[in-house]
Amino acid sequence: MKNLIFTLLITCFCSNLKSQSPKHEQPNFIIIFTDDMGYGDLGVYGHPTIKTPNLDQMAFEGQKWTNFYVGASVCTPSRAAILTGRLPIRSGMTSKKQRVLFPDSKNGLPASEITLAEQLKGVGYKTAAIGKWHLGHKKQYLPTNNGFDYYFGIPYSNDMDLLQGDEFKNYWNRSYDSIEPAHFNVPLIRNTAIIERPANQHTIIKRYSEETINYIKKNKDSPFFVYLAHNLPHVPLFVSKEFEGKSKRGLYGDVIEEIDYGVGEIIKTLKEEGLAENTIVVFTSDNGPWLPFKLNGGSAGLLRAGKGSTWEGGMREPAIFWAPGRIKPAVITEIGSTMDLFSTFSNLAGAKLPHDRILDSHDLGPVLFQQKESTRNSIIYYRGNEIYAVRLGDFKAHYITQGVYGQFGKREEHNPPILYNLSHDPGEQFNINNQHPDILKEINNLVEAHKSKLVVGKDQLAERE
Amino acid sequence: MKNLIFTLLITCFCSNLKSQSPKHEQPNFIIIFTDDMGYGDLGVYGHPTIKTPNLDQMAFEGQKWTNFYVGASVCTPSRAAILTGRLPIRSGMTSKKQRVLFPDSKNGLPASEITLAEQLKGVGYKTAAIGKWHLGHKKQYLPTNNGFDYYFGIPYSNDMDLLQGDEFKNYWNRSYDSIEPAHFNVPLIRNTAIIERPANQHTIIKRYSEETINYIKKNKDSPFFVYLAHNLPHVPLFVSKEFEGKSKRGLYGDVIEEIDYGVGEIIKTLKEEGLAENTIVVFTSDNGPWLPFKLNGGSAGLLRAGKGSTWEGGMREPAIFWAPGRIKPAVITEIGSTMDLFSTFSNLAGAKLPHDRILDSHDLGPVLFQQKESTRNSIIYYRGNEIYAVRLGDFKAHYITQGVYGQFGKREEHNPPILYNLSHDPGEQFNINNQHPDILKEINNLVEAHKSKLVVGKDQLAERE
Repeated sequence: MKNLIFTLLITCFCSNLKSQSPKHEQPNFIIIFTDDMGYGDLGVYGHPTIKTPNLDQMAFEGQKWTNFYVGASVCTPSRAAILTGRLPIRSGMTSKKQRVLFPDSKNGLPASEITLAEQLKGVGYKTAAIGKWHLGHKKQYLPTNNGFDYYFGIPYSNDMDLLQGDEFKNYWNRSYDSIEPAHFNVPLIRNTAIIERPANQHTIIKRYSEETINYIKKNKDSPFFVYLAHNLPHVPLFVSKEFEGKSKRGLYGDVIEEIDYGVGEIIKTLKEEGLAENTIVVFTSDNGPWLPFKLNGGSAGLLRAGKGSTWEGGMREPAIFWAPGRIKPAVITEIGSTMDLFSTFSNLAGAKLPHDRILDSHDLGPVLFQQKESTRNSIIYYRGNEIYAVRLGDFKAHYITQGVYGQFGKREEHNPPILYNLSHDPGEQFNINNQHPDILKEINNLVEAHKSKLVVGKDQLAERE
Repeated sequence: MKNLIFTLLITCFCSNLKSQSPKHEQPNFIIIFTDDMGYGDLGVYGHPTIKTPNLDQMAFEGQKWTNFYVGASVCTPSRAAILTGRLPIRSGMTSKKQRVLFPDSKNGLPASEITLAEQLKGVGYKTAAIGKWHLGHKKQYLPTNNGFDYYFGIPYSNDMDLLQGDEFKNYWNRSYDSIEPAHFNVPLIRNTAIIERPANQHTIIKRYSEETINYIKKNKDSPFFVYLAHNLPHVPLFVSKEFEGKSKRGLYGDVIEEIDYGVGEIIKTLKEEGLAENTIVVFTSDNGPWLPFKLNGGSAGLLRAGKGSTWEGGMREPAIFWAPGRIKPAVITEIGSTMDLFSTFSNLAGAKLPHDRILDSHDLGPVLFQQKESTRNSIIYYRGNEIYAVRLGDFKAHYITQGVYGQFGKREEHNPPILYNLSHDPGEQFNINNQHPDILKEINNLVEAHKSKLVVGKDQLAERE
């Protein structure tokens, strides 16, 4: 019995040690943002053969959001949205002709935009961007000039800078079996200097996870913000040796499983360093799966279409919020957006929100910490500089529908708009616009109100060298 | 500090109390079998708006199987399969013309078949069937003549016995809004006597759950086997007052959430009665979602097609195995079948397997308790009395494909068969039969071996009054 009491006391003591208060009061933030991952690609979101034990565990210990959106269905505008809390139409980071930035693009995120990193740095945070940037690769547009103390990553998509020459003609029509990391001359940058070119993409997931862990360990005495934006599972797909052939899903699954492993290592670090209770970790992706790439692309699960489109499969993503003790376990069906992280984290950190501009950002605090209703009740789905669809509550109206990359049909305008009840019909199968003229009117009013205040930012994507 | 020690000791004492050994060594078994639920209809299998906290918890504490199959894609043969551990072609419970039994059917499960209940009763189990039977509604075919001590339920589908008369002409073409429980004159039976007609289906989920709980409490001193086969979410859909409008998914979601609630109450009972550690609970469904019923039908998630077909959506189901302490938490991608419960439970209970017949049943024990590989490596997909498809390892060959209920295309024979890698491509999108002649040959050999030993049972479904 003495032994038992001793063991129990030691157990208590140790758990107290683990949950000791951190040295600062502002919570740390880690955003893990993958590239082109689909709604259906994690175990806990229904994939049968991709194993994601660490993300499943996070979802079970934290909040699993099932109606969480990105600001655009392709990379550049989606990234502008998450970091500024604003629809990319306002910053000029979306455009009619050019959907994303390229290595020959002249511009990037305008200096006048305020990033979440700038917000947090202003109230004492150490800030790091690790991974894909894609908001301008010239020095003045890089993370280190946008509120981040530190940058390590590939500044745009991993399928850019394809080598020139006859050998590479019609490259994308060929089998993925012949893809080699050395075919893509993408640079790897530390702060503002290129340190490797081409970046060795086989080890890129691993190195991003390790950079994150090192940054946490070095900066744990201050509040910190890490924006970890994996370049993968965007094609071309690469994994490190340890994950080759690991997943039953093939290479795409190997990639997700290596990302999941890295997430697990980050969580382990937070626990070991006594930071778990004072760190909020969010895991999500920038847009839906790139379906034309077949098995090298992901799956949107039961959602319709994927990347590039304004169907749900293009813009609804898994989203897991984890902060043991702070965030109670729940499945959240409220509406949220990556843009909401701007206000939510600013408020938690004590950073004042800018009042000289329109934000499209809601504070999710009441949902995260008190399981109240979200103040966000709508999503505006832009494609380029046009509104294609709007969600209001359960309902989504499509003004325009258009396929992507040769799939899912041509551009079509709808008057009256097609209407779906997304809560009943997440797969957008059953048009009910003849049943709800009232809802259509409400949605039209919302669009008019939005447009009446909209100042379109100068197009930053159009100019190329 | 004294208080602390006291609290800790009390805590220890109480947890010991809860986990005390049961009075018998044979484990109890509860099979919860829903009707027409899809692969994508539970939270933990990816549905965004159906909330299933109890099943999610079971999946997290137990094993979530993602490659688990039923014996047929419609009710009667699927139920014959789970209870006999044999493909329904052997028992005659599947037929070319008639897919299921009807209220005017003459026959049922032949007396020569051995049910799992008979196996377990033979080694001292108390046995109950609660819910839908659909293996013959005449007295000699009812559960009480098939190894069950007790029966409470509707003996066939809840959309049978539609009232006659002009009012009911073209009933199924009309909106579901006009459906009333009283339109279906289905009987509710206790043991062999009709106790209510029409059965009040609004309270049927609740009453099935309560009957299960009462049976457990009354019979806990013996090993017991409860086969709880919900009539729902088969259309027409009904819920009790407390669950009306509860789910964001609409009435279909309400039904699943009421079933989930009942599962939670059953688990709570097992814990309260000190039975949790010695009871194995399995949750699955009889076949995929009935898609033509649109929002009154379920969702197969990322799987193709649904009920009635031999695509994955018709025959792959969620399957959760729960037995805290015995079954360690895991996601299992091994192949399993409802037919395997026959051998698995017989072996655990110490009931000898019959040696005078072919069983299609594998002992899943090594996977459940030691996380070893499954000895089952194949699935034969019958439709009626024909083999439409065969899965071997990761690969599935379709010899015949055919839509269901006017959807998904006409009957088509394929030579060579269409081939999919289900681990890579669970949605059956990318035919790779030209890449794997070796696999096709192996699958052909498997079919030949199966056919060479097959004795087709006398058709039990054909004769009607």
